Amino acid sequence: MKELEERILKDGSVRPGDIIKVDNFLNHQIDIALIDRMAKEWKKLFADKEINKILTVEASGIALAAVTALEFSVPMVFAKKSATTNIDKEVYSAKVYSYTHQNEYNLIVSKKYLGPEDKVLIIDDVLANGKALEGLIAVVQSAGASVSGVGIAIEKGYMPGGKIVRDMGIQVESLAIIAHMDDQTGKIEFA
Amino acid sequence: MKELEERILKDGSVRPGDIIKVDNFLNHQIDIALIDRMAKEWKKLFADKEINKILTVEASGIALAAVTALEFSVPMVFAKKSATTNIDKEVYSAKVYSYTHQNEYNLIVSKKYLGPEDKVLIIDDVLANGKALEGLIAVVQSAGASVSGVGIAIEKGYMPGGKIVRDMGIQVESLAIIAHMDDQTGKIEFA
Repeated sequence: MKELEERILKDGSVRPGDIIKVDNFLNHQIDIALIDRMAKEWKKLFADKEINKILTVEASGIALAAVTALEFSVPMVFAKKSATTNIDKEVYSAKVYSYTHQNEYNLIVSKKYLGPEDKVLIIDDVLANGKALEGLIAVVQSAGASVSGVGIAIEKGYMPGGKIVRDMGIQVESLAIIAHMDDQTGKIEFA
Repeated sequence: MKELEERILKDGSVRPGDIIKVDNFLNHQIDIALIDRMAKEWKKLFADKEINKILTVEASGIALAAVTALEFSVPMVFAKKSATTNIDKEVYSAKVYSYTHQNEYNLIVSKKYLGPEDKVLIIDDVLANGKALEGLIAVVQSAGASVSGVGIAIEKGYMPGGKIVRDMGIQVESLAIIAHMDDQTGKIEFA
């Protein structure tokens, strides 16, 4: 999506540790008009898919998922992150390792809100190693639901997450795919 | 808002510890069509106010704030919660005591995303003691911005938060105000 790429070049920045900082418009302050156009783009890209629920993970995926749910006229669910290893029986959960924070957490969704009847579009802001996304997919599968697709704002194309999930046969639509970025020069190149 | 009250009676439940559980439609699974009508209600209620930014706090306020921002055609910002006492100079922050979790955390907003030009509508899902809301107001004031109003989904009318904030001269619009609830009988009465 040309507009998102241009916005990343204008307002995004590259930080040491392979961080793409987009908190001006995507995950702290949120340009809701841009998000609305992104949601409309996913609506077009997944036009041939049956989708009756949007799933994301707190916190930075929620605004994206909410506007996308509005566009698709379906409910949304956000998975919660929990540090506790003591998971109750009322939830589906998946362990996720975070490279950013170098710790492990659990993704949790109440069993009441995902079931075999659900055809799920997963939405998230950034895809890199794909650990959070694999966790969300595992949660959907635990529920006997199916993944209709994955919508990502920014994918780091040089990281393994996108390939891992596409190799599962899942349609992944990343609206901007970074081919290369450099925190020394600040340069960002798209695929 | 009659529809929200009826939905709370239908799908909400009262849990020990003065908890109103509404995770079926408001803060885990989210009925986005209902949220959209709530946002339109706030648009009417704050029609005479100048508003150029929506502010909320992660995580359960974000979906509400996103749809409200879309309705008002303004950007949104969500405050982050941080356990660290080590707050950098780039952020506005406020200490908040959580009665639910019985701990203290910091609300944090980057200084880049709030300033004297901002006329802020604060949105949140539940108002009880008002500690989180007071923290958000403090953050807005630290930025030299002004609070144009507060939109709350569910207010516990028997708790002090609503009165504290209205006594500051701030317009607070709670779409459902619980006058009384009882976890023994499950009964919920509105003001």
